[in-house]
Amino acid sequence: MASWGERLAGVRGVLLDISGVLYDGSEDGGVPIPGSVEAVARLKRSQLKVRFCTNDSQKSRGDLVGLLRRHGFDISESEVTAPAPAASLILKKRGLRPHLLVHDGVRSEFDQIDTSNPNCVVIADAGESFSYQNMNKAFRVLMELESPVLISLGKGRYYKETSGLMLDVGAYMKALEYACGIEAEVVGKPSPEYFQSALKEMGVEAHEAIMIGDDIVGDVGGAQRCGMRALQVRTGKFRPSDERHPDVKADGYVDNLAEAVDLLLQHADN
Amino acid sequence: MASWGERLAGVRGVLLDISGVLYDGSEDGGVPIPGSVEAVARLKRSQLKVRFCTNDSQKSRGDLVGLLRRHGFDISESEVTAPAPAASLILKKRGLRPHLLVHDGVRSEFDQIDTSNPNCVVIADAGESFSYQNMNKAFRVLMELESPVLISLGKGRYYKETSGLMLDVGAYMKALEYACGIEAEVVGKPSPEYFQSALKEMGVEAHEAIMIGDDIVGDVGGAQRCGMRALQVRTGKFRPSDERHPDVKADGYVDNLAEAVDLLLQHADN
Repeated sequence: MASWGERLAGVRGVLLDISGVLYDGSEDGGVPIPGSVEAVARLKRSQLKVRFCTNDSQKSRGDLVGLLRRHGFDISESEVTAPAPAASLILKKRGLRPHLLVHDGVRSEFDQIDTSNPNCVVIADAGESFSYQNMNKAFRVLMELESPVLISLGKGRYYKETSGLMLDVGAYMKALEYACGIEAEVVGKPSPEYFQSALKEMGVEAHEAIMIGDDIVGDVGGAQRCGMRALQVRTGKFRPSDERHPDVKADGYVDNLAEAVDLLLQHADN
Repeated sequence: MASWGERLAGVRGVLLDISGVLYDGSEDGGVPIPGSVEAVARLKRSQLKVRFCTNDSQKSRGDLVGLLRRHGFDISESEVTAPAPAASLILKKRGLRPHLLVHDGVRSEFDQIDTSNPNCVVIADAGESFSYQNMNKAFRVLMELESPVLISLGKGRYYKETSGLMLDVGAYMKALEYACGIEAEVVGKPSPEYFQSALKEMGVEAHEAIMIGDDIVGDVGGAQRCGMRALQVRTGKFRPSDERHPDVKADGYVDNLAEAVDLLLQHADN
């Protein structure tokens, strides 16, 4: 494998995944991953541009940033690309009136959206709200539409909380896709449009950017397909088998965000 | 299309789907489909062999038969092929200890099965028991196994109750398959082994048998792939678009079971 110097040459911007990279979530707020608070601070003191690119769809962007700030992270709302505000823009642009199957914590992101007489379904990581009754309701809304539109905020398989692995929205997206015989539109990683919007907001071209995440497919594979480089951290939902993934090879594997930032500050353009 | 006489020539045995053909279910027991009670009685008075082949996995075979008898159907437990008893045999034969994600109503079918220290997951149409917490538990059991085994009692997309369409086990099977990166083993229609076990119990060869069901894929397509003929009834979950299905064409479409039995008694070998 090429040296770190070669692999990181020309990097001007860094996209950071949040859950599993900055902190591990839990019902009571979670815990920062050791070294990550300092790593973010060091990165932001460098010449590198930084943006946070999350698939978290349980919390509003404001609540997520508030939580991270309480953990000590230097982060503000304007630095975060999150799927719910992105979906909200799409709904407005296309005149879609969603039936929302989402966590109560993220509902405020859709305050400005007309949800009467729905003509599409939006699902997010709804957690406990993924009851049979709520899923059946979303299913029935879709089956009554002539051209059913299902928008899924991410398509992750699972994520890690301090209590263990948790089923993510992707599993429920697949359930509705199969039941209705349709394909969902994904707003979130690994959708290319989503990565591109984050790059645009950061003001960096894909070939000058690197993604750091714990998801070999959603973060690493998705970013690489957009022409970015990508590192996988061995925290969060990382599993040793990820390093032998049949389809995706990261540009590097690091123990945690702190190690990634050490390497970036040493070798990238800063 | 060939005449009914040609299409039904040589039929000696009839497999009947239950839900959507005999009756439409509901929380309080459902209602028989008009004409079906008499149709079953006429069929059983003929020379044709009859067997019931269901994917119902919410109720034990005893409870299902009891319910149908209360509706007036001439049916006994020994005439019914159902996925839970079939799965129970498979678990015993392979020494599998399941984590059960099933409706309480069907749990008694697994009374003789060791469920300690599970080495597989069995899911059935669990209805309200498909909570996030129960799905996550099943997911975690699978993720902890070196070679995860997921057995799904059927893979239906949805079924019809008197209140409307209901998500079936297939949707939740797809969710777990996706989250764990595995493929489930299906016990129930349209698995060929399942149809073949029903044919064997009826004592009729596939080419002498006809399936009558409301599911164009699970009943009609599945039976045809086993070398049987198949009729779709326009009751239960039937939708007009089924008659233009891109992949499956029934050997005939009939308004209901009563019409199917009229045709069989007129044209089949009896």
